[in-house]
Amino acid sequence: MLRLASIIALSVGISSVRAAEPFRLVLTDVEQNIYKETAEITGSDVTPKSPASWSVRKYVLHGGRQEGVDVIEVNNGKLRFTVVPTRGMSVHRVLMGDLRLGWDSPVKGLVHPKYINLETRQGLGWLEGFNEWMVRCGLEFFGGPGTDEFIDNTGKKATMDLTLHGKIANIPASQVEVTVEREAPYRITVRGRVDEALLHGPKLEILTQISTTPGADTFRISDKVTNRSAIEQEFGILYHGNYGPPLMEKGAKFFGPARQVTPINEHSASDVSNYDVYRAPKAGFPEQVYCLQLWADEDDRTKVMLRNAAGDKAVSMAYSVKELPFFTLWKNPVAAEDGYVTGLEPGTGFPRNRSIERKFGRVPKLAPHQSRSFTINFALHSGKDQVNAAADDIARIWAGRKTKFDKIPLAASKTSLSDVIKAARTWGPAFTPWHGKPAPDFTLTDITGKKHKLSDYKGRNILIIFWATWCRPCHMEIPHLIELRKTTSEDDLAMLAISNERPDLVKSFVARAEMNYTVLTDTGTLPGPYNTVSAIPSSFFIDRDGKIKLGTSGLISLEDIKAIFEAE
Amino acid sequence: MLRLASIIALSVGISSVRAAEPFRLVLTDVEQNIYKETAEITGSDVTPKSPASWSVRKYVLHGGRQEGVDVIEVNNGKLRFTVVPTRGMSVHRVLMGDLRLGWDSPVKGLVHPKYINLETRQGLGWLEGFNEWMVRCGLEFFGGPGTDEFIDNTGKKATMDLTLHGKIANIPASQVEVTVEREAPYRITVRGRVDEALLHGPKLEILTQISTTPGADTFRISDKVTNRSAIEQEFGILYHGNYGPPLMEKGAKFFGPARQVTPINEHSASDVSNYDVYRAPKAGFPEQVYCLQLWADEDDRTKVMLRNAAGDKAVSMAYSVKELPFFTLWKNPVAAEDGYVTGLEPGTGFPRNRSIERKFGRVPKLAPHQSRSFTINFALHSGKDQVNAAADDIARIWAGRKTKFDKIPLAASKTSLSDVIKAARTWGPAFTPWHGKPAPDFTLTDITGKKHKLSDYKGRNILIIFWATWCRPCHMEIPHLIELRKTTSEDDLAMLAISNERPDLVKSFVARAEMNYTVLTDTGTLPGPYNTVSAIPSSFFIDRDGKIKLGTSGLISLEDIKAIFEAE
Amino acid sequence: MLRLASIIALSVGISSVRAAEPFRLVLTDVEQNIYKETAEITGSDVTPKSPASWSVRKYVLHGGRQEGVDVIEVNNGKLRFTVVPTRGMSVHRVLMGDLRLGWDSPVKGLVHPKYINLETRQGLGWLEGFNEWMVRCGLEFFGGPGTDEFIDNTGKKATMDLTLHGKIANIPASQVEVTVEREAPYRITVRGRVDEALLHGPKLEILTQISTTPGADTFRISDKVTNRSAIEQEFGILYHGNYGPPLMEKGAKFFGPARQVTPINEHSASDVSNYDVYRAPKAGFPEQVYCLQLWADEDDRTKVMLRNAAGDKAVSMAYSVKELPFFTLWKNPVAAEDGYVTGLEPGTGFPRNRSIERKFGRVPKLAPHQSRSFTINFALHSGKDQVNAAADDIARIWAGRKTKFDKIPLAASKTSLSDVIKAARTWGPAFTPWHGKPAPDFTLTDITGKKHKLSDYKGRNILIIFWATWCRPCHMEIPHLIELRKTTSEDDLAMLAISNERPDLVKSFVARAEMNYTVLTDTGTLPGPYNTVSAIPSSFFIDRDGKIKLGTSGLISLEDIKAIFEAE
Repeated sequence: MLRLASIIALSVGISSVRAAEPFRLVLTDVEQNIYKETAEITGSDVTPKSPASWSVRKYVLHGGRQEGVDVIEVNNGKLRFTVVPTRGMSVHRVLMGDLRLGWDSPVKGLVHPKYINLETRQGLGWLEGFNEWMVRCGLEFFGGPGTDEFIDNTGKKATMDLTLHGKIANIPASQVEVTVEREAPYRITVRGRVDEALLHGPKLEILTQISTTPGADTFRISDKVTNRSAIEQEFGILYHGNYGPPLMEKGAKFFGPARQVTPINEHSASDVSNYDVYRAPKAGFPEQVYCLQLWADEDDRTKVMLRNAAGDKAVSMAYSVKELPFFTLWKNPVAAEDGYVTGLEPGTGFPRNRSIERKFGRVPKLAPHQSRSFTINFALHSGKDQVNAAADDIARIWAGRKTKFDKIPLAASKTSLSDVIKAARTWGPAFTPWHGKPAPDFTLTDITGKKHKLSDYKGRNILIIFWATWCRPCHMEIPHLIELRKTTSEDDLAMLAISNERPDLVKSFVARAEMNYTVLTDTGTLPGPYNTVSAIPSSFFIDRDGKIKLGTSGLISLEDIKAIFEAE
Repeated sequence: MLRLASIIALSVGISSVRAAEPFRLVLTDVEQNIYKETAEITGSDVTPKSPASWSVRKYVLHGGRQEGVDVIEVNNGKLRFTVVPTRGMSVHRVLMGDLRLGWDSPVKGLVHPKYINLETRQGLGWLEGFNEWMVRCGLEFFGGPGTDEFIDNTGKKATMDLTLHGKIANIPASQVEVTVEREAPYRITVRGRVDEALLHGPKLEILTQISTTPGADTFRISDKVTNRSAIEQEFGILYHGNYGPPLMEKGAKFFGPARQVTPINEHSASDVSNYDVYRAPKAGFPEQVYCLQLWADEDDRTKVMLRNAAGDKAVSMAYSVKELPFFTLWKNPVAAEDGYVTGLEPGTGFPRNRSIERKFGRVPKLAPHQSRSFTINFALHSGKDQVNAAADDIARIWAGRKTKFDKIPLAASKTSLSDVIKAARTWGPAFTPWHGKPAPDFTLTDITGKKHKLSDYKGRNILIIFWATWCRPCHMEIPHLIELRKTTSEDDLAMLAISNERPDLVKSFVARAEMNYTVLTDTGTLPGPYNTVSAIPSSFFIDRDGKIKLGTSGLISLEDIKAIFEAE
Repeated sequence: MLRLASIIALSVGISSVRAAEPFRLVLTDVEQNIYKETAEITGSDVTPKSPASWSVRKYVLHGGRQEGVDVIEVNNGKLRFTVVPTRGMSVHRVLMGDLRLGWDSPVKGLVHPKYINLETRQGLGWLEGFNEWMVRCGLEFFGGPGTDEFIDNTGKKATMDLTLHGKIANIPASQVEVTVEREAPYRITVRGRVDEALLHGPKLEILTQISTTPGADTFRISDKVTNRSAIEQEFGILYHGNYGPPLMEKGAKFFGPARQVTPINEHSASDVSNYDVYRAPKAGFPEQVYCLQLWADEDDRTKVMLRNAAGDKAVSMAYSVKELPFFTLWKNPVAAEDGYVTGLEPGTGFPRNRSIERKFGRVPKLAPHQSRSFTINFALHSGKDQVNAAADDIARIWAGRKTKFDKIPLAASKTSLSDVIKAARTWGPAFTPWHGKPAPDFTLTDITGKKHKLSDYKGRNILIIFWATWCRPCHMEIPHLIELRKTTSEDDLAMLAISNERPDLVKSFVARAEMNYTVLTDTGTLPGPYNTVSAIPSSFFIDRDGKIKLGTSGLISLEDIKAIFEAE
């Protein structure tokens, strides 16, 4: 029986290595069909000269949804952590005295990926297994669920529904081993390889390492992502580190040398001045997310910290902003039983859908066979002195430089046009066959006698309004248009109101109504689609490329006009 | 090795309990990583004084899609049942002599949830594991697949595709134990806890108990559902009990004190008078479903029974209609090899999509930390005397009270508007930007000189028909409209036909055609969208809230008009 | 413990059979809960008189995504193959000396189905486990992902999203056994039963057999598919056999008596003359697929072969075209690390979505309880003599008969109308309520005085173009229409251009522009929808059934006109 045999092999493995080489114990090797169900190694056996005692224990969880989950417990004599090879080498908990890295998820136990369907709950199935302190998100994609594009097996563009935070956290490692240096500082390392590869898809591989030294209050995550394909490949990684009590609590604080803080949505924006402090649990409080960019020192290294209210317990993470340029602070101060938690999440991008992040240049690519490495040093700080020392480090990096706070939420500029249309109350889309098509050109004379050619306004947004002096809804729209003209630059937006009435009639009305935007008159010379306007007010929204973004029929408010131009 | 160790632990467990307490054997405890692969306990060991011998045996199924499925066989000396912790504590079969509760599913064996993808087959993946006698449906939702709404992690409404009958039957129990009372009646109970919880989702828990006493021909299911969240949570449970031969057969009967019987669709309605009798297997016969509400006694308790054709074998279930107010009778008399089966299904609602059931008030909520309990007592009846005694019980509850039969199927009123539109042959939707918008008001004079203001008809459905005396398709539509007026109350529906021709011309036509609904004439005074009607007949369907439900272009039949007003 | 017990049972099993019967070892039997984790049988034990030694070894893979995968290694003394019961009885590799049947998939190891979600990646999840030499595709459906229809549990039509290549390759076998004949030629057979059955769905079963004889360089796959339902059932099977080096390489060749070769898409069509030769690996090269029908001998038997560049290594497959009438050649000559591979795939149809294949009559049905059998004989050829002998066999079947090459790709005629509309640049859909409705009839006079009645053209495609002599976009469209008329038969397409201008004016313009299609004039007599044309050019595309397939507004090119008529 393979399982029994593999346990016997362990002692042989220990004795057969040469003293100069690090101790090495292979726990899983898919290629060689090696799999050790249990194993235990101790400092007294492997590093008898180490002053601090330590141990590594491998075992399997059984029962319920944890049936078959491998765990590796590392105890360096001072702190303990648990690695979960079955869940993509995530780390369940880190414990040191009464200090805990981790949180109390509504999901109990470590859920085997065989019970996780990432596609369920409209792409939120990842949450059904979300429990650990540290979960990697990626590698093909991470962030919010939703549709993106990919290249199919015939070389054509096709759409793909991305699921929350990608697949890597639910893929068991193909190779797992523990190594221990035989000489001081006797570094203990748990290594894993997780493959995210298929025909006609990405061929990504991550080598993960989590290591510590006997007696230390620090440990390190050090990963390498490699593109095993002969073609270029997009990728992303986000280190989703999650903290509940005792670090997160009312009055706890986040310290980080923030260069820019961008709330992800309106709800987060409303509280941006308190983005770095934590409130008490509150049932049903919607999560808040802040997208940060951090100052770094001359070596591109930065450090952030989460500390409790009393200031005597903290965790800090130090890493390079070249490797992980974006940092997300996730605050979810709901009731304890619903998952009171905060996430400190350095990544290659922000955790939004890849289709959005790509537009902002935050989806990096790996050339064929290229690798990228990511190293984060964690330290647990116990006692005010230690906590303050870490805060001093952060202040040194910050060096008095300013934090820019964005008022506009990251998500606000990303409303979809279809959402704007759905929300419309007083108007609807019209001239739909023309949407996305180039706006046909025309030349008309304004009420001062000046000629205006549509194509002269190319490069700006253009709003064309068909109206008439006798039209009651048109009257209602005018104040909105006046306000729009006041608050938007001419270089940014051209506004052309067109009436088919007599110029003198229009001119006197414009004066009385104090209309501050261009008013043209037409005598039936316009081409389609303008000559098919059969109801007023009707409007055309033309984008900077000269394409008709939307045609509308009915009265539109200032807010909706802005939303249409900003929408995607 | 953990598995070996856990078996050794069993005998220790038995000996270490005090005599006064019930015997207790923990089979699975995820928190403590307890998992017993096999176990066997017997009456002679645990209850030596019990006159009836009994046994409980735990083992694991291996091979094929049953690999790793835990089963617990309880034999009380008279009847045997098999509990399946891996499949949400469902019950596979109950056997007593030649009496069997259960059915012959096309799915063979007990399928491990790791092989079930609930999302597959357009949300019907649950069927790929559907085999047991008793499956619980729920807890977040149950019923038909389809889209519903939920609140996402930012507090906003989002849609979710619900899958058939929910998740609970495919979640392994986190905690499983067997207890046996040490004194008469020596009740044997199999307990389980199944968790349906995640961040940003429900935190529901069910504690299940199935119990019997040595030598009895009865057993009991007794469950408790708890909301472990600090916020209110919708939930539902339906006990999907399934019976094939020997109980279901040609001439078998369902006995239940039906207060109301509502067929779920037309096919079921066509056979409603035989809802309680069973036909012989017939290849390809589409299933029939009857939604029942049952009479109960003064303690709110009811009882239903399924008995074979000869009347000498039966099963009965007794429970409280306060706990389980709705009862579904599912008849699927297809060929034996395709799953000849009937379901007797008490529940907190009917097994339709949650989005529909919510509208009818059949989706209950649990307050934070609130629990609700459900108990069903089952009895197996062998021999005519026993069967007749159970029938007498049911008659006593019924007490001669009437059964109301609904003629309109439950599903009929639920056609979707988009389905009606898709099925249209002679018309299409028009004026789409106005759909869902308030219908602009107007006042017109009818051919008798009486003024009609649209808004005066608010609270009724309103049909506006644009037509003309010279329009051939309009002529074809008139008999349909006359019939509609005859068969629908004025209080329910206002019908306004509008022509832009001369009133005298229209008046004489109306008389000749014997039009019995309101006919108005217009001289171009109407606002949009009415003034944009460019083809006739065109119609507007305005709902009781005064909103335009649909605009159409083309000839519409009586049936389609009714369907549009009834559709959702 | 069941697992230990089952191993002990093995030797008993061996000794208890009678000498006359074949040796039989049951490895899995779900009904009896038999499951052998490991087993080994050898020629010296079972067939001591066999001159060639052989062995069969059953074991389980552990670790990573292969945890729990059963494999059966058969070594006949000359060649070795590995059957994978957990993955639907697929065959991982066949090895004989330096000859290998199989390929180097980007997916490493044999992935347990519990890690496969067929629905992911828009129905391409099958690829996440695709690694083996021979994978069966089917049984309910196979081919490309996409929506098809099925009959739901109420007897109504419903849609279902089919996933790539069906489910059978990710369903573990319910029954597995090895038999060995006790007399020469001592045939060794690995048998499996895989069930694809559920309530309200198919009840399909496949009995698979792979067999060889000691010392042979041949083996045989011999399957039987049975419909276990009382109602008729569609099904399909495709033998997806995959080859990388050493058989596939630059200059390798496919030999097959091709009767017809149809490229699946434009990219494949561009290279059709080289369909049977292989290129060197090229990073990012999109796959090419050729759909073949093969010549067969008088017994309906055919043979195909894949041989390396040097012509000294080959594999051949011989089978009946009655059983497997269609053959797909898949060429994927990407870089080695991305999966350089070719597929030789006999099947009951081509690997496209069932909804398409059904239209071409390539989705067979099984009557209730009907079975169909499929047998393929494989031979490995080593050395030029053997390879040439196999080539001679193929030439004998071919017998000098011709190969027809299709120029039009199989997929080209299948563009969807919605795709054509999406790709439109200069026009958009219009008159949408009329799409799919019968085109109202009319009679108009052409500029030569001849009357044309629309309905007289029934049975042809009809293009109606509304235009005018003064309309600039109409002028631009005319050359396209002239070319269309030149290149399309009158019997196939009627072209009716309609102007509402004076006939004499139109006549002189037509002469000058050398318009070669029918030009009609109208004086306002047309019915709807034609009388609602408000912009020109507008066109109506009427199909052979007289239904309006599409109405458009705007200038349409020759290519788009053809695409609209051809689209589905």
